[in-house]
Amino acid sequence: MATTETRRRADAERNIAAILDAALVLFTEEPQSSMVAIARAAGVGRVTLYSHFPSREVLLEAVLDRTIAEAGEVIKKAAPEEGAATEALRRLLRTSWHVLNQHRKLFNLAQRELGPARLRQRHRDVVDHVERLLARGQEEGVIRTDLPMNWLVTTVYTLLHAAAEDVNTGQLKAEEAADVLEATLLPALRS
Amino acid sequence: MATTETRRRADAERNIAAILDAALVLFTEEPQSSMVAIARAAGVGRVTLYSHFPSREVLLEAVLDRTIAEAGEVIKKAAPEEGAATEALRRLLRTSWHVLNQHRKLFNLAQRELGPARLRQRHRDVVDHVERLLARGQEEGVIRTDLPMNWLVTTVYTLLHAAAEDVNTGQLKAEEAADVLEATLLPALRS
Repeated sequence: MATTETRRRADAERNIAAILDAALVLFTEEPQSSMVAIARAAGVGRVTLYSHFPSREVLLEAVLDRTIAEAGEVIKKAAPEEGAATEALRRLLRTSWHVLNQHRKLFNLAQRELGPARLRQRHRDVVDHVERLLARGQEEGVIRTDLPMNWLVTTVYTLLHAAAEDVNTGQLKAEEAADVLEATLLPALRS
Repeated sequence: MATTETRRRADAERNIAAILDAALVLFTEEPQSSMVAIARAAGVGRVTLYSHFPSREVLLEAVLDRTIAEAGEVIKKAAPEEGAATEALRRLLRTSWHVLNQHRKLFNLAQRELGPARLRQRHRDVVDHVERLLARGQEEGVIRTDLPMNWLVTTVYTLLHAAAEDVNTGQLKAEEAADVLEATLLPALRS
């Protein structure tokens, strides 16, 4: 039988999940959404919301972290460590674009509210996949070694997010983005 | 002899110039600077400041527009319409990096406070130089024609600003950035 403490924890976890779900939807559809609106959509009181997420910024970071962790799982399933590095890079780019495309608007908001440097820091886990794969490509002789590794990672990360931004502003079609990214990045990265 | 009206206009222009000068320095050195601090540094009263720039956002846009207009002049002097397109592109990249590097911190602030889409809109004039030069390169057969022109421009614009951001965060040395940009962009753009 559940103790009071166990039940309290289960309630808290359920509330946190409901808040994160509601915040993801509202930040995406109505970026200006207030904490009050998010509490209402999550079916929790304001006091409960603020007890878990003391500010809009903390909540946005938590939503972002969960989204990026899910993206990391999807990227892992694309097995960037398997097969020839160039093929694995193509797979990684397409998978990354696919998950990024689903959350384009959330990232646009995060770029504005957290700034580009903090947004990139929170991507550390997914960016690590890119870096490991590029290092493997360098060992295989197919990825250039004349530029700092960090810059190669910046190039991949930045152009992926630029494509998302161009889709947001209607300058690029979402369904063309993966091809365009591959056609731009492979020549920029290969040795 | 100057009329009262002429004198009033000259005063206003002097005040505006002083405000823009002070705002450029403060936005760069202390991005959180308040309107009060900017008025003080410019040697004008708050009422005068607000009569010309009704909000911090309007003032930031004006500082940015002046900076980008100056950058446009510098780029024009590098004569992107002269010589072989590839050489002109190299010159354009180096000149653009040089002016961007001087205002890295202002652009970081603008990206945060205005968002990437509005920041790019305000770059229209300088971005036009890039687009015209890439179109000339396509006619000369040295720039790729298989991707949308707008995406090629995005690639140049985005990687320039990404380099500025990497210098801001200490991940790239300012003095290496021009070489790194050229080495990344030429293979990504050429046919």
